Amino acid sequence: MNKRKICVVVASRANYGRVKYLMKAVKEHPQLELQLIVGASTLLYRFGEAVNIIREDGFEPDRKLYYIVEGETLSTQAKSTGLGIVELSTAFEDLNPDIVVTVADRFETMSTAIAATYMNITLAHLQGGEVSGNIDEKVRHAITKLSDIHFPASEKSKQRIIKMGEDASRVFNYGCPAMDILKNEELVISNEKMAVYGGTGKPIDWTKPYILVVQHPVTTSYGQGYEQVMETLSALNRFKAYQKVVLWPNIDAGTDDVSKGIRIFREMNRNEPFHYFRNFSPEDYGRVLNNAVCCVGNSSSFIREGCFLGVPAVIIGDRQESREQGQNVIVTGYSRKDISDSIETHLNNGRYPRNTLFGGGDAGKQIADKLATIECFKKKRITY
Amino acid sequence: MNKRKICVVVASRANYGRVKYLMKAVKEHPQLELQLIVGASTLLYRFGEAVNIIREDGFEPDRKLYYIVEGETLSTQAKSTGLGIVELSTAFEDLNPDIVVTVADRFETMSTAIAATYMNITLAHLQGGEVSGNIDEKVRHAITKLSDIHFPASEKSKQRIIKMGEDASRVFNYGCPAMDILKNEELVISNEKMAVYGGTGKPIDWTKPYILVVQHPVTTSYGQGYEQVMETLSALNRFKAYQKVVLWPNIDAGTDDVSKGIRIFREMNRNEPFHYFRNFSPEDYGRVLNNAVCCVGNSSSFIREGCFLGVPAVIIGDRQESREQGQNVIVTGYSRKDISDSIETHLNNGRYPRNTLFGGGDAGKQIADKLATIECFKKKRITY
Amino acid sequence: MNKRKICVVVASRANYGRVKYLMKAVKEHPQLELQLIVGASTLLYRFGEAVNIIREDGFEPDRKLYYIVEGETLSTQAKSTGLGIVELSTAFEDLNPDIVVTVADRFETMSTAIAATYMNITLAHLQGGEVSGNIDEKVRHAITKLSDIHFPASEKSKQRIIKMGEDASRVFNYGCPAMDILKNEELVISNEKMAVYGGTGKPIDWTKPYILVVQHPVTTSYGQGYEQVMETLSALNRFKAYQKVVLWPNIDAGTDDVSKGIRIFREMNRNEPFHYFRNFSPEDYGRVLNNAVCCVGNSSSFIREGCFLGVPAVIIGDRQESREQGQNVIVTGYSRKDISDSIETHLNNGRYPRNTLFGGGDAGKQIADKLATIECFKKKRITY
Amino acid sequence: MNKRKICVVVASRANYGRVKYLMKAVKEHPQLELQLIVGASTLLYRFGEAVNIIREDGFEPDRKLYYIVEGETLSTQAKSTGLGIVELSTAFEDLNPDIVVTVADRFETMSTAIAATYMNITLAHLQGGEVSGNIDEKVRHAITKLSDIHFPASEKSKQRIIKMGEDASRVFNYGCPAMDILKNEELVISNEKMAVYGGTGKPIDWTKPYILVVQHPVTTSYGQGYEQVMETLSALNRFKAYQKVVLWPNIDAGTDDVSKGIRIFREMNRNEPFHYFRNFSPEDYGRVLNNAVCCVGNSSSFIREGCFLGVPAVIIGDRQESREQGQNVIVTGYSRKDISDSIETHLNNGRYPRNTLFGGGDAGKQIADKLATIECFKKKRITY
Repeated sequence: MNKRKICVVVASRANYGRVKYLMKAVKEHPQLELQLIVGASTLLYRFGEAVNIIREDGFEPDRKLYYIVEGETLSTQAKSTGLGIVELSTAFEDLNPDIVVTVADRFETMSTAIAATYMNITLAHLQGGEVSGNIDEKVRHAITKLSDIHFPASEKSKQRIIKMGEDASRVFNYGCPAMDILKNEELVISNEKMAVYGGTGKPIDWTKPYILVVQHPVTTSYGQGYEQVMETLSALNRFKAYQKVVLWPNIDAGTDDVSKGIRIFREMNRNEPFHYFRNFSPEDYGRVLNNAVCCVGNSSSFIREGCFLGVPAVIIGDRQESREQGQNVIVTGYSRKDISDSIETHLNNGRYPRNTLFGGGDAGKQIADKLATIECFKKKRITY
Repeated sequence: MNKRKICVVVASRANYGRVKYLMKAVKEHPQLELQLIVGASTLLYRFGEAVNIIREDGFEPDRKLYYIVEGETLSTQAKSTGLGIVELSTAFEDLNPDIVVTVADRFETMSTAIAATYMNITLAHLQGGEVSGNIDEKVRHAITKLSDIHFPASEKSKQRIIKMGEDASRVFNYGCPAMDILKNEELVISNEKMAVYGGTGKPIDWTKPYILVVQHPVTTSYGQGYEQVMETLSALNRFKAYQKVVLWPNIDAGTDDVSKGIRIFREMNRNEPFHYFRNFSPEDYGRVLNNAVCCVGNSSSFIREGCFLGVPAVIIGDRQESREQGQNVIVTGYSRKDISDSIETHLNNGRYPRNTLFGGGDAGKQIADKLATIECFKKKRITY
Repeated sequence: MNKRKICVVVASRANYGRVKYLMKAVKEHPQLELQLIVGASTLLYRFGEAVNIIREDGFEPDRKLYYIVEGETLSTQAKSTGLGIVELSTAFEDLNPDIVVTVADRFETMSTAIAATYMNITLAHLQGGEVSGNIDEKVRHAITKLSDIHFPASEKSKQRIIKMGEDASRVFNYGCPAMDILKNEELVISNEKMAVYGGTGKPIDWTKPYILVVQHPVTTSYGQGYEQVMETLSALNRFKAYQKVVLWPNIDAGTDDVSKGIRIFREMNRNEPFHYFRNFSPEDYGRVLNNAVCCVGNSSSFIREGCFLGVPAVIIGDRQESREQGQNVIVTGYSRKDISDSIETHLNNGRYPRNTLFGGGDAGKQIADKLATIECFKKKRITY
Repeated sequence: MNKRKICVVVASRANYGRVKYLMKAVKEHPQLELQLIVGASTLLYRFGEAVNIIREDGFEPDRKLYYIVEGETLSTQAKSTGLGIVELSTAFEDLNPDIVVTVADRFETMSTAIAATYMNITLAHLQGGEVSGNIDEKVRHAITKLSDIHFPASEKSKQRIIKMGEDASRVFNYGCPAMDILKNEELVISNEKMAVYGGTGKPIDWTKPYILVVQHPVTTSYGQGYEQVMETLSALNRFKAYQKVVLWPNIDAGTDDVSKGIRIFREMNRNEPFHYFRNFSPEDYGRVLNNAVCCVGNSSSFIREGCFLGVPAVIIGDRQESREQGQNVIVTGYSRKDISDSIETHLNNGRYPRNTLFGGGDAGKQIADKLATIECFKKKRITY
């Protein structure tokens, strides 16, 4: 029997954590063959070369594709999308998959969706139907309209996809496979385990309390990233008793501004307990998040994985606006006062109970099973 | 006062007929400045170099952009989309429009939509919300999700867009500007007027009865175009008493197959009254359609303009499946028997009364007025 | 032992005829492994889909790459070169050849040369060192400067390459492998053999006398192709006693003009004995050339293969200006009078004796042997 | 009278210093109009955004083009070249220059040369004819063969270009315009002037002795950059009495390795007197170089500008192998011992006298005058 070929495109640092357990399940499935394309910032030193982690996990890429046009401006974001389509269409033609799997809502995801669509390949989309601020909102729903099979991460998202006119029999809420990692892996942290990551700034003791900071540029307020991150870091600087773990931002229009802010803050505060990292493996990211006393910024992982783990989260600004969320989240403004007040509230409050709003930890296997049996076809029609 | 800059991207033969009256209205509007980008097949000899007609109409392009990757396979369709994004983003950066206008649902339209989206430019979309077969169905709705302002061509389409979660206060049904041409121009045909088009095949007398044929490849049944067009032309060959006016197909995956079919049929039937054309100006296309005794194929113009004019139309196959339509349309299968039976029915029946289902002929001005006053903003949120 | 991987890039109709016997020799060589990339116009219907002939000859492409940006203007020629580099670099990264082989001087050749150069792959170049008019002159010598191993087709070319500063120990004149076909294949023509090609225009009897016409656009006089080809065809029209075999031009800036000229001439002279073809296999092209009473136009094959076969050739204009040539060639101007006078001279004179100026027919094997043993290295230095 | 349009493409940090005085001369010339395209790493934060300096100097770009595909691998270097051609050809089509000016031998230069060549625009090349190691050697001579007018920087280079078969009447040795800056600007350094550059590492006192370090990756020994730069920095670390000024490397395949080496060295040697900068204006770079007690690495500016200024230079490895040089240069190996021995020798020896081997400081004006009057034509022929 011919195995069904499932091509997963991993095109950003965050992507991998969300599909790792799906990739595992596809690889182990008797009726499925995993094809892996690793592309875009996953290959780049500046973004932690996630490809190395992927390989160490035993996944050998079938293709490595470079398509980030450097600049992190609005137009390079567009150009990267375009170049991605050019490269991915050649790869799809060679690999000839039955189903392409794409995740979330970034421009790299759009490249995958467009290339698969025009090549008449069935497209499966993870994490559709969510609501947020940012340009991602538009892109996410557009990808939903290009997709043939939907694996949203929550019940509300599922209902939203169906309302958009998608065939309800092809929308499945199994939760997000990122939770699978949190459920199945040991989340204790130790200095030994974390020593491989190096990083810059003051040395860190992972067994002591720390606050985690991840702040990405917001595409729709392009140009304000420098001030925004400066407010955040200044707010955090008030909490002298805690170590701070800062992750460099994603590759988006505006990354340079945010990075510059971080770099300048770092130079001016060499003796403060801040530590800066490029990337963690998905498991270690789970550990870092799980053991934080609080997390601050605008990463969607704070809302999703944070919800499952019950980690207190301060979400800054409108990048995640309107996103479904658990009780672990306080949304606040960009000013250092707003931010430090919210952190204060969380610190007084402590950890929250586990919440499976975004999945219970067995999404990967369920999605793989569905991919093995669902009818693949080319034609799709809006339901109304 | 600064005029609002409206950038219209004309990227295919059919596009121009649909926006011409909008371009006119924008150009004449005291608060608007027209920016014109002409690209893709509009510049190509094989597709009739519509750019020449556009210039003769008094519209001088601000940019001419080449981005068709030749091949008309599935992958070149994807690659053309990608290259279009690369070229359009540079042009948008230079021209810096307030609003970009895009039309319909082809891959060139997708290029425009993606480039505008990632450059944070307000996107206005004409002809969203329709339902059809083909890959266009997916693409059309995806473009709706990327667009900020919607100008659908019918009431049902408007309702569908709103159901998809778009803000009802930004969806306007003024009809399709293609009807403006039909209402405002003199549609009498004459041999003098049509002499400029040359074409190949038997000489034609435009004052004598003829049947119009336009058959495009169907992306989702890629590879069957040769047989499909052969059936159509063979069916038409039975109607010896009528001249046949055949247009070469659009640039889509599969165009080569259809073109080859037409070319071989032409060589084998040199003495039959068939005539082959590459392109007409929108007005002349209106004339050709208006004076046809029947039109046969799968062009959406048969359904839309045909509805307004009341021209009997035989729609073959599923490219236009489920599309809203007037009583002038008979939908039929690909076999020569089905086709000739449907033609027969129409010939016995004759012309149909005017139907303004897709607009009453004053869309261009109404859309321009709305573009001049509507709030341009960057943020959009699904309504549920 | 690991075989050395030799990657041949075939990127135009003419390319294939020139490397076929080299590909054969590489494939059969015990120390070599053939990698084949087929790209650009070789894949396109308009240019005869040479890929089909390549496959029928038993060569299965490792990659098929589309990178022609349609338009045949100056800027699309540049863009195709650029897109070619993007596609070829991905392919080279996957295939990881020891040596890349490229041929002649077209923009597709330049794509190959640049991609190989920047990827640090040893580059072998066939047909360097020649002199001609056209933009190819610049490009050919630039490719020589990028190449590591040179296989010119004549002694003068070899000397010119060495004078340009290339290491004489890496320049080898084994002649052009196109002659291998002429020496090793049976060149008798028959109507049966040629029936597969179809073509348009009057039926042809290959056993009766015919003149062969191949006229390409001249990039450096871009815009004059229409008039030029009209003069040529009009000159040929005077020789009513001979059939005329016309090949459609190459894909270059200006192809549309030349094609249009041919198309219009064809429509106006339906009853004259002209026949139009898209492509022949290399062997059949050898047959067509060998059996022509005269060949007219500006194809370099008239000078090279024509020299070996002794076929009278009228070379029009400056595309081949200054090119080394045998006695079978008369160079003439663009006017119909010049052309018909030159044809007349040739017809009175008849065939010329074999001349091995461009090779004796065993180049493929000699080049393959050299590729198997020559030192591959990365560093190159000009010799003065 | 129509002014001749001279389009200068500035596509890297080093480029600008070399053409600044030519741009000035073109701008002030009564018969010339300056068109300026700023592209590639000139726009990038990681490479110091030279575009800001260009603007502060009063040159407003006509186009800003992003075409660096991130990754700094061999294949991204190729892809950047390709994407550059795509972008530049569109810009050239819009700007329609009479002459395009390009400088030196990097991949961005190749993009410019190819785009101009295929668009039939006269190409003027600065700094051709030189000899060096690295892939640049190949590329530089290939660009010479694509160019129509040559402005080499030394007499030997001029002779080499002519030997390569270029028309001697179109090769002009006016020296390198980089010397114009050194001759015409005040080269005294001060802490006030230099305060704008920030940088990281230990604070620097510019009035105290320092050694300048610039080390780029070497494309032909791709993968060894990390070790190479570590040796260099370790050698420098022995000279505790001197401050060290380190510039980040150019964007080339291998940049990531070198940058990583510098970053790790920096983290491990926080208290040593090293200071790290991204970019200087050309004048300030002249100042930094002029006031260094010694310069160490593989920048060609050490050989050229260093020669004019008489600054002792230690050139490491083969990137500049065989390059013409003055007595200020010691060439040495990659080991820390070789490097520190060579520095020692220079420190004992002191400064060298001015040497005008690469120009006397008035190249810009002479080149502009020649561009105003030389015949522009399209056709070029090798001279033998």
